[in-house]
Amino acid sequence: MKILVIGAAGMVGRKLVAALTEAGTVGGQAISSLTLADVIAPPPPGGTLPHTLVAADLSLPGVAEELISDRPDLIFHLAAIVSGEAEADFEKGYRINLDGTRLLLEAIRRNSADEPYCPRLVFTSSIAVFGEPLPAVIGDTHQHTPLTSYGTQKAICELLLSDYSRRGFVDGVGIRLPTIAVRPGKPNKAASGFFSGIIREPLAGQEALLPVDETVRHWFASPRSAVRFLLHAAALDTSRLGAQRNLSMPGLAATVGEEIEALGRVAGPKAVALIRRVPDPVVAKIVAGWPQAFDAQRARELGFVGETSFDEIIRIHIEDELGGAIS
Amino acid sequence: MKILVIGAAGMVGRKLVAALTEAGTVGGQAISSLTLADVIAPPPPGGTLPHTLVAADLSLPGVAEELISDRPDLIFHLAAIVSGEAEADFEKGYRINLDGTRLLLEAIRRNSADEPYCPRLVFTSSIAVFGEPLPAVIGDTHQHTPLTSYGTQKAICELLLSDYSRRGFVDGVGIRLPTIAVRPGKPNKAASGFFSGIIREPLAGQEALLPVDETVRHWFASPRSAVRFLLHAAALDTSRLGAQRNLSMPGLAATVGEEIEALGRVAGPKAVALIRRVPDPVVAKIVAGWPQAFDAQRARELGFVGETSFDEIIRIHIEDELGGAIS
Repeated sequence: MKILVIGAAGMVGRKLVAALTEAGTVGGQAISSLTLADVIAPPPPGGTLPHTLVAADLSLPGVAEELISDRPDLIFHLAAIVSGEAEADFEKGYRINLDGTRLLLEAIRRNSADEPYCPRLVFTSSIAVFGEPLPAVIGDTHQHTPLTSYGTQKAICELLLSDYSRRGFVDGVGIRLPTIAVRPGKPNKAASGFFSGIIREPLAGQEALLPVDETVRHWFASPRSAVRFLLHAAALDTSRLGAQRNLSMPGLAATVGEEIEALGRVAGPKAVALIRRVPDPVVAKIVAGWPQAFDAQRARELGFVGETSFDEIIRIHIEDELGGAIS
Repeated sequence: MKILVIGAAGMVGRKLVAALTEAGTVGGQAISSLTLADVIAPPPPGGTLPHTLVAADLSLPGVAEELISDRPDLIFHLAAIVSGEAEADFEKGYRINLDGTRLLLEAIRRNSADEPYCPRLVFTSSIAVFGEPLPAVIGDTHQHTPLTSYGTQKAICELLLSDYSRRGFVDGVGIRLPTIAVRPGKPNKAASGFFSGIIREPLAGQEALLPVDETVRHWFASPRSAVRFLLHAAALDTSRLGAQRNLSMPGLAATVGEEIEALGRVAGPKAVALIRRVPDPVVAKIVAGWPQAFDAQRARELGFVGETSFDEIIRIHIEDELGGAIS
């Protein structure tokens, strides 16, 4: 099985590649080669699988054709620019997040002109496809009313993925990832950054700022779950999806207060004491418009599994990023 | 007020242009000029308004820029290829129905580089954005799960219209038209053709084929209502729309049996006797997946008004197409 990963240099992409090389198989089939692409050259995978590293911008003419020229059986398309950047740079957002995906779909469709070609395409969508009005728990049939250009671009790609799949041009599965926590690495300026920061920094003995009230409730999955979702989507029996190829992934609904309680249980009061409350009305207003929880019944019935407690999410961070122990 | 109508040669486009020239105003503002565009040159409007006729394909480079070069205050974008053709010719459907609309939106956005420009754009979407599973009555927050490429293209354009409006590039209103009945002209091969045919042909003393059961229920508005919807959308206070710029139009839910009863009341048993039942399982299956009725509460609250009986729809056809009387 030949695999192409687009967006292989990102946080989730790198963890996915590590999981692929470690397992050597996907859904019981042996992996014969890996092509790893991103706008910057992805790091070489560990292990012994034959691999190709590609630095390329999917939104440029000819790139998609080149990436699929060896007809990969399985394609993970994770490449996107994030919400804040897509809002700040309108043209870049549409070019990367919409045109890039459409060029990939078109390259796949045109590739079957001479010989049938219908690869599995696993696409990462986002809960940003949902906007006001939002119920407390978002069901699987909730309408898409995105309130950002990023969410609009993801919603459009979902529609394209379903239509190209319905027409038999690709075998697509779109997965809407929860907010990933605990994100490894340095603090960033994303409005959602504090959800990870108030866990990650205290575990590293550093102070973390909390800009919102402890009653704020949001929807989470660990990086480990994100990778598991991608691998499960890669091996899914898509005949069970019908015409609707996109799924809200299961996750954990938790308030900031519940996050902090979990931190206390896992790392003690010294860690909790490192959280400093500095209310930021701008961040509070942005976050107030975000989804709080999903039903995710379809995905759960299809075998996708997320976390059931924030303690578990914190322990996964300690195991996967901190060598299994906190100082 | 300068007005541009794209798709001016179509059935609804011609009726819209006739209404504009007759009124000479839109929302109380005098019309100063009309630009009428379509892939074939539209017929000249009646009346004395200054006008320009353009034969052009919106999906070709530079056409959108040219069409808006005199900065129309109000743009009606009705141009599209229909459902059957978009399904038969995948590339043409995406080129005309998606790329054409996106090129128009981009031309408008880029036109404001030097001087602010944010015209009202009235876009005709379709109830084809809705697909399985469908409730008996579709509410204003029902999800979009189109089952055709045409419906996918319209759903994508709705998302673009909302995002470009939210960003302040255009002042968009998208209206999802019910199935238009009674369509004037000759029978066509559209799966929906019989809904009009079983009224139009008998009124003209000709036989009409009915391929489905009389219990089939669908959602209708007259051509006169379609024009009234467009004009109402052109003058709407869009601050009342919020972030959701697209509306399901009000209509009349009626079964085929109710259509036939109305025909009997308006034109007598001789007309009804001209309907010949020739069941067509293919058409029956297509139609079974179509919407039956809408709530359309938002549109009604915003002042959009449709018909309340099929008798009314038939009388409008007699008044507008048959000179007010049947033979």
